[in-house]
Amino acid sequence: MDHNAPVVNDKHRIRTAQLDLPPRLLLGPGPSNYSNRVRQALSTNEIGHLDPRFIDIMNETQELLRYVWQTDHAFTIPVSGTGSAAMEASLANLVEPGDVVLIGVNGYFGERLCDMASRYGADVRRLEKGWGEVFTTDEIGEAIEFHRPSILGLIHAETATGALQPMDRIGKLCREFNCLLLLDTVTSLGGVPVTLDRWHVDVAYSGGQKCISCPPGIAPLTLGPRALEKLNRRKTKVANWYLDMSLLSKYWGPERTYHHTAPVNMVFALREALRIIAEEGLEDRWERHSRNATALWEGLEEIGVSPYVSEEWRLPSLTTAIVPEGVDAKAVAAYLLEHFNIEIAGAFGPLAGKVWRIGLMGHNSRHENVVLLLAALKEAMDNA
Amino acid sequence: MDHNAPVVNDKHRIRTAQLDLPPRLLLGPGPSNYSNRVRQALSTNEIGHLDPRFIDIMNETQELLRYVWQTDHAFTIPVSGTGSAAMEASLANLVEPGDVVLIGVNGYFGERLCDMASRYGADVRRLEKGWGEVFTTDEIGEAIEFHRPSILGLIHAETATGALQPMDRIGKLCREFNCLLLLDTVTSLGGVPVTLDRWHVDVAYSGGQKCISCPPGIAPLTLGPRALEKLNRRKTKVANWYLDMSLLSKYWGPERTYHHTAPVNMVFALREALRIIAEEGLEDRWERHSRNATALWEGLEEIGVSPYVSEEWRLPSLTTAIVPEGVDAKAVAAYLLEHFNIEIAGAFGPLAGKVWRIGLMGHNSRHENVVLLLAALKEAMDNA
Repeated sequence: MDHNAPVVNDKHRIRTAQLDLPPRLLLGPGPSNYSNRVRQALSTNEIGHLDPRFIDIMNETQELLRYVWQTDHAFTIPVSGTGSAAMEASLANLVEPGDVVLIGVNGYFGERLCDMASRYGADVRRLEKGWGEVFTTDEIGEAIEFHRPSILGLIHAETATGALQPMDRIGKLCREFNCLLLLDTVTSLGGVPVTLDRWHVDVAYSGGQKCISCPPGIAPLTLGPRALEKLNRRKTKVANWYLDMSLLSKYWGPERTYHHTAPVNMVFALREALRIIAEEGLEDRWERHSRNATALWEGLEEIGVSPYVSEEWRLPSLTTAIVPEGVDAKAVAAYLLEHFNIEIAGAFGPLAGKVWRIGLMGHNSRHENVVLLLAALKEAMDNA
Repeated sequence: MDHNAPVVNDKHRIRTAQLDLPPRLLLGPGPSNYSNRVRQALSTNEIGHLDPRFIDIMNETQELLRYVWQTDHAFTIPVSGTGSAAMEASLANLVEPGDVVLIGVNGYFGERLCDMASRYGADVRRLEKGWGEVFTTDEIGEAIEFHRPSILGLIHAETATGALQPMDRIGKLCREFNCLLLLDTVTSLGGVPVTLDRWHVDVAYSGGQKCISCPPGIAPLTLGPRALEKLNRRKTKVANWYLDMSLLSKYWGPERTYHHTAPVNMVFALREALRIIAEEGLEDRWERHSRNATALWEGLEEIGVSPYVSEEWRLPSLTTAIVPEGVDAKAVAAYLLEHFNIEIAGAFGPLAGKVWRIGLMGHNSRHENVVLLLAALKEAMDNA
């Protein structure tokens, strides 16, 4: 019988030490550091995911997400995964095979939207621009008129390039052409102005670990009434059980029907991160991100490092900074990690080796971090 | 311009209190409680998901998972989601449209496997048995011979019923008929004997929050060489980007290529939970679960409550207990929560209202919990 003392193989029974990690300052493209209040909330004593006390926590988290996104969408929830899971959820639920999906591709995350949409059978149309550039409303309008998509997907803040897509009139254009507007707000939400309802955004998602300043592993998603209507009209089941929002809406809606076990502690952490945002207030938070980013950009110029993206659409939460001629980008990043415990990131695709990516997100968008980073970067460029 | 001080709507800016939760003893079907060591690991200071220090943590976590599963599978990783995500990952990667998938259905989770597999285009064949029963090897062998499936999916420990599927000779039968064996070990891994390589299991998944005693939000997945071969032979892309193991294997393999942001803190917690298992040793851990379950079963009989599942295949980590005639199952569970801070669960499907589900999982499989629960349940039945 297998259940009577099978022989145990101890080959993989390794002895490992207790975790003891260096105090990293995470100034890359995310995850960012978070407040000790969030850390404490994360390790709050556990309760069950169907506990009556958890219901209140769910409701409060949903309501605070609506504030941060500036939306009245009833369907606003944290997805049990990272930002990529929420990204996939948005497409898995809304794309039916054959749907024309128009995607703005001006960096890595637009590429990824194309890949994901195609996996759900979309007829993907690409609107392309160089890495670091953004689309004009006219360009988008012409493309919508030409392709007549069911869904337009845009990246609000391109984490690969540091460009911020202006949103003027785009939502209205989508409504004119009966097209859903899907917006990636992973690196913008909680750091730069995002006003979903004012922009007529139908679907948006984000990640907890960028400007929200929560640990990675939980990801906000919101679907407006037009998106829910498309979901409810589907002729085929969502090709993804875990992310099927028609099932999940029963857990996050009034029925509270079991779907899967919510990541309870991650919800605790997200709720606390959102409370902090509500206490600070969005206007002050946006202003803080803008002020610290401006100080970073000025300081970078002073040490001979130019921001890559045009100031007009430069993203305050993530800066791409041009590696000066003759400087080894990787060696500088390694020096910062080794000598300062500061993490910044390189880039990939066409920007690989050409720029660093420096994040000042949420909790980390602070004067002291700007000053320290500039001094450290100067030392690293001199010594690496 | 949208980026210049849009008007912020404070409608959803609610004021909420700091979390202050009752000290629940989680004796339902999971999540279970976990050790304070795991809690401390969960809130270890954060590092980036591409930090060189995180690589060691990933390697150690993978190796300890191999120990707990008793497998040499190189591809053994934690999925960034709950057990349901790992369940979906197993099917999303291995099922190609038209594949015959045979699934043992003797409870809710077998049903769910059928639903998920069908979403990936499988030709699903059901092998059925009553809730609380298990399949004989002969029944499985006949079904494999008749249906000639590419994949046989079984639930090792049915969380909905408390039945434990014996695994004798099933893996060998699968190999004879060139069929992959997929095993759900959500409620068995770390609590009852699971020896994947000895059983010739090709694909298995689990959840962190059951007998592993980690918070929910991370889920082990393992693919053996035959499963990887089927994945690599696919003619179509995996219809799920987030769970595409051909992409994820590059992040969890030697390349460490970015795919999505790993839930860093959840990996810290899982690693610590696995360290605790390695320190205790699997034999002692299995024996502890068996001993405490036996004490629970004997104690239940003494207060007039009979276990539902035949002792032969009764699951030590989760017991279904028959609600005595005239007792209100829901009222008793509510009494336990209110007066003892103990969570047990009801059931669903054909067992709704008929049984309670009582978990003694991982950290919670303890003598003191058995004694307290029995006394509390007796009081609740007398007073609820």
